[in-house]
Amino acid sequence: MGGTNTAMGIVDRRGEILFRSSISTLGYSKGEDYVNDLGNAVIDLIENNNLRDKIRGIGMGVPNGNMNKGTIENAANISWAKGILVPLAAMVEEKTGLPCKLTNDANAAALGEMAYGAAKGMKDFIVITLGTGVGSGIVANGQLVVGHDGFAGELGHVRIVRGNGRICGCGRTGCLETYASATGVARTAREYLELQPEKESLLRNIQHRPITSKDVYEAAKKGDQVAIEVFDFTGRILGEAFSDFIAFSSPKAFILFGGLAHAGSFLLDPLKKAMEDNVLNVYKGKTEVLISKLNDAEAAILGASALAWE
Amino acid sequence: MGGTNTAMGIVDRRGEILFRSSISTLGYSKGEDYVNDLGNAVIDLIENNNLRDKIRGIGMGVPNGNMNKGTIENAANISWAKGILVPLAAMVEEKTGLPCKLTNDANAAALGEMAYGAAKGMKDFIVITLGTGVGSGIVANGQLVVGHDGFAGELGHVRIVRGNGRICGCGRTGCLETYASATGVARTAREYLELQPEKESLLRNIQHRPITSKDVYEAAKKGDQVAIEVFDFTGRILGEAFSDFIAFSSPKAFILFGGLAHAGSFLLDPLKKAMEDNVLNVYKGKTEVLISKLNDAEAAILGASALAWE
Repeated sequence: MGGTNTAMGIVDRRGEILFRSSISTLGYSKGEDYVNDLGNAVIDLIENNNLRDKIRGIGMGVPNGNMNKGTIENAANISWAKGILVPLAAMVEEKTGLPCKLTNDANAAALGEMAYGAAKGMKDFIVITLGTGVGSGIVANGQLVVGHDGFAGELGHVRIVRGNGRICGCGRTGCLETYASATGVARTAREYLELQPEKESLLRNIQHRPITSKDVYEAAKKGDQVAIEVFDFTGRILGEAFSDFIAFSSPKAFILFGGLAHAGSFLLDPLKKAMEDNVLNVYKGKTEVLISKLNDAEAAILGASALAWE
Repeated sequence: MGGTNTAMGIVDRRGEILFRSSISTLGYSKGEDYVNDLGNAVIDLIENNNLRDKIRGIGMGVPNGNMNKGTIENAANISWAKGILVPLAAMVEEKTGLPCKLTNDANAAALGEMAYGAAKGMKDFIVITLGTGVGSGIVANGQLVVGHDGFAGELGHVRIVRGNGRICGCGRTGCLETYASATGVARTAREYLELQPEKESLLRNIQHRPITSKDVYEAAKKGDQVAIEVFDFTGRILGEAFSDFIAFSSPKAFILFGGLAHAGSFLLDPLKKAMEDNVLNVYKGKTEVLISKLNDAEAAILGASALAWE
């Protein structure tokens, strides 16, 4: 479930999406109305394909989803969940007659990686989503770490710069996501261009609209030095953060997911170097950094479906 | 098992130490010889008290203990385990005929708190040991977080100051334990006295020997401003670190254990304030900071024994 659209699919044990459907998330003022339309779409998808007896359960990935309570809490981008707590899982169970579990997108991505992706067979790993923000799903002992309140795993809001860091949307400063998100990369590029006016760069040709992380990637591919330095800086920050995360849960691997993960070695090389340079001796050379194997278009459905196996 | 002495006890389900014994850890050149004497002492303790049929298993807390593998790895303070890997749990099992599990001291402390102490009934909490160094035992979903290699939970080596932090015994700089350990407190006191020569302090009367954290505590109790500032600084650093740890596993509580934990409100008040001031909104007001309820002298035995119930 995203702010605009809710995609759904019937997934088998091997991670194949057999059938798909979707409804709009917009245009509802009450959660009840949304759940009614969602439930009807789910029931249609099941019954039109004669799968009523074969469905084990429903898994949902939702913004601000709380796995412990099955609720969506204070989700800023969902009109019918703004400032309130909606018991979404229970409502979907009542409407469909099927057991339903939900969690947030990054946790769903972690379960998807464990069930069908790069973390198959791993019991300790961390998925880092590098999109507009930085999200994370942490698995330890083969289980999601959700914390006593269901909200664990906000690694995008670990303070990577103390004292005089960048201002974050959360109201604090220096959070990892102000540097290591797609937005952070664009911000770094603008700072580099401003602070080094003598340096030529393809990025200076972009005018009348803000520079995006995709622009930086395209420029880096063409050998643009400023763009390459921007990814160096971003990778270093991420690598330093990872070296601290390792001291916490010693994961077998970090799995990068989302737009920035496709920047390839521009990001990965400085990231891995900074991680190894900064990590405590006992962990050196032990932790992999992998790119998600899940197709972006399928990952949301696969991740959510993995919840139903739990 | 400490570097000097190995204490042992027979513990019942309620956490009562029924019988005790100990052997020296010193004076062995081979692990086999140590295990032989240890095993004999354990067997004597059991048989002298007619408990052969009642023992569920053996739990051990050992320096650099690896729970996944049951080994003691490269322990600098244990003569027969320096630079090598000793399969201690398997050796103790063979000698005694009882199942044996081991882990490091901080993890054992966490299990002890969960079985008999301040974390009774909690499934998500973090024990922080504040001694010569800073150790940690992390519990998520009711299980110890040990990581893919058995060495997770080195929160004393999370970088709290980047760039120009204090030099740490681990060979890096800026680690939490260079500030928040007993040693760190003494170091802060020496820096404060040196950098503020105009300030009077009882600590200036200490000569011909290094200042200790206990000196700082005694001075603070007498109202010494420099000593109080030292604890303020230490508490602030710990509180900032805790606010990041919360973003990882959202624990219900931090439980402080070891010498510095007894500094009471001198440390706790600035710690809690800094934690609340720095934590992400979604976690505000949710996390407790508690002092261990386990008696220091009993904690090592109780913590280790809790492993046997696992």
